Amino acid sequence: MPEIHAARRAAARRQVAAAGADAALITSGVNVRYLTGLASSNAALLLPSDGQAVLATDSRYAGTAARECADTELVVASVIEPALARLAMARGIGRLAFEAQEMTVERHQALAQLDGGGLDLMPLGRVVEELRMVKDESEIALLTRACAITAEAFSGVLDWLRPGVTERAFAVTLDRAMIDLDAEAPAFGTIVASGPNGAIPHHVPGDREFAVGDLVTVDCGARFGGYHADMTRTVAIGEPAGWQREIYQIVQAAQAAGVASARPGEAVADVDAAAREMISGAGHGRHFSHGLGHGVGLEIHEAPSIGHGKTGTLQDRVPITIEPGIYLPGAGGVRIEDTLVVRAGAGAAGPAQLLTTITRELLVL
Amino acid sequence: MPEIHAARRAAARRQVAAAGADAALITSGVNVRYLTGLASSNAALLLPSDGQAVLATDSRYAGTAARECADTELVVASVIEPALARLAMARGIGRLAFEAQEMTVERHQALAQLDGGGLDLMPLGRVVEELRMVKDESEIALLTRACAITAEAFSGVLDWLRPGVTERAFAVTLDRAMIDLDAEAPAFGTIVASGPNGAIPHHVPGDREFAVGDLVTVDCGARFGGYHADMTRTVAIGEPAGWQREIYQIVQAAQAAGVASARPGEAVADVDAAAREMISGAGHGRHFSHGLGHGVGLEIHEAPSIGHGKTGTLQDRVPITIEPGIYLPGAGGVRIEDTLVVRAGAGAAGPAQLLTTITRELLVL
Repeated sequence: MPEIHAARRAAARRQVAAAGADAALITSGVNVRYLTGLASSNAALLLPSDGQAVLATDSRYAGTAARECADTELVVASVIEPALARLAMARGIGRLAFEAQEMTVERHQALAQLDGGGLDLMPLGRVVEELRMVKDESEIALLTRACAITAEAFSGVLDWLRPGVTERAFAVTLDRAMIDLDAEAPAFGTIVASGPNGAIPHHVPGDREFAVGDLVTVDCGARFGGYHADMTRTVAIGEPAGWQREIYQIVQAAQAAGVASARPGEAVADVDAAAREMISGAGHGRHFSHGLGHGVGLEIHEAPSIGHGKTGTLQDRVPITIEPGIYLPGAGGVRIEDTLVVRAGAGAAGPAQLLTTITRELLVL
Repeated sequence: MPEIHAARRAAARRQVAAAGADAALITSGVNVRYLTGLASSNAALLLPSDGQAVLATDSRYAGTAARECADTELVVASVIEPALARLAMARGIGRLAFEAQEMTVERHQALAQLDGGGLDLMPLGRVVEELRMVKDESEIALLTRACAITAEAFSGVLDWLRPGVTERAFAVTLDRAMIDLDAEAPAFGTIVASGPNGAIPHHVPGDREFAVGDLVTVDCGARFGGYHADMTRTVAIGEPAGWQREIYQIVQAAQAAGVASARPGEAVADVDAAAREMISGAGHGRHFSHGLGHGVGLEIHEAPSIGHGKTGTLQDRVPITIEPGIYLPGAGGVRIEDTLVVRAGAGAAGPAQLLTTITRELLVL
């Protein structure tokens, strides 16, 4: 869909002009992909505030770029950034905005010293990241598919959540199920945290075997078409103890409160507070040690960041996660996470479009 | 093995002192892992030229760091670089060397402005990368295992290299076979390039089905204990045509020449030339468009780079790849790649220790 990428470049170009730059040098791989459609580990884009964009990549991606990005000028070079910077100078570009959040000090210095330092380099800021926050419907369709793959894979491997199976074996089984369902790859390293490991929010799956009496937290997602799903469920193996049911219910209520407050115009700090106050009110404030959620898209963590002290408001068509948790050191934990799209129009279930379709009730296996 | 990491830090510390810095701030994840043993997506190390190292990470990795890196001081913080930089200032460190090849302009600026700019920041250079080039026997053992997994997985899925199977299905099957054999993950995106796609050195596996008459190039590797195997084989499906046998034999001879020249003290440019001249001499110089090889270790591509115009010499205990190829646009290609360790002592098969155990003869399936 070249016209989508052309429209994105037009929007970015307006920001480049507003920043007072003659052109931007886009070097973040996902930003280049967003603006051109080219998925490459070595590509950059010269985006003049006025005029045609120039895409640079190496010979490995030249054919793909020529086919899929026919409406940009193409430069094939083994070292792409100096090639684009020299081209910019040759075309009379003086003020060149760069992505300071991605470019290393070493590469920046190489550009600054090029041919005697003819370029006036200035930081662009997170212009493309901010454009990426609000998704179009083609992006939401890809994310919806990624979430559907995640849910189907998770449902399909639930019978592996049984005593004697290790965290790692379950994680590998789940990852394969996602690949079988056409995921490009897991969206991130799958987390499987059983029993006391459940108190570690980002536990790496290990050799611990599931046992009766465990709560098991599974945080997983598929990547599809470049878009990242993110889902967490905590399940019980065998009849849960009173304390396990209690913290589950608190997290479940907090998660529902967070989802309910995820509306356009809502401050992200208030969305966090809606969920956090239910956990604090139940006496577990210090056991919820991370933010409530984050944007998802071409990256697994992207804008907006939803947490205490974060700034900004939610907007229509922004996909986010809502993922409160309670972590009791040495004992275990619960986290429930959905991916959803903030929407202006309200549905029957609430204002947000839920992409995660697995029940939020406690599954007892 | 904390004593190994302590010895590595001592070697790095000497380089920090030689660079005229009071301390180094190590922010490259693999470098932090090399110097401490901690594998984390968010860790940094303050390494004074004199005194105990300070490892910083966030709460997710705090437990692991405390257990596995008991001989470093530990700082747990959500934003680790400013925390370490402030600690450095509090301890009277003025000249702080940083990794300009890793640190972004944005993060550098944040450090430079910290508390009024009390730090004198200077680039460290690739000090740790250079130390990493020569491996110890524990590292070579992990790499040997990674290569053995790769070879066993490749051997086990050879019967999938048959007409009608797609490149992508074969790649997924091979990746799973590596995981089944205890690989942590594929070391990189597996390349499967069949028929005319074989002319593209880094072809991404697609929907093309294998057919009788194809050469198929498979470039794959397992990661084990953080170490990356790298192997390429080109096989024939059905009896190969004359031109296919011909380019195979040229590449095979070139690869053997490269392996034979991989001795301590040999200039990397000469190793490249030893292989390249055989391909050029056969009239295919312009069809071998990349360097001959690269170091492997905690990264899939690391020092040394072996190619035309590259500088430096090989040393004892440096694992490298040797991977010449011939690529005929529109027709197909051949690449043969081994991982091997440059060794001072000569074995029966030559001076290098070959870690890739699959035959280099043309397999006709």
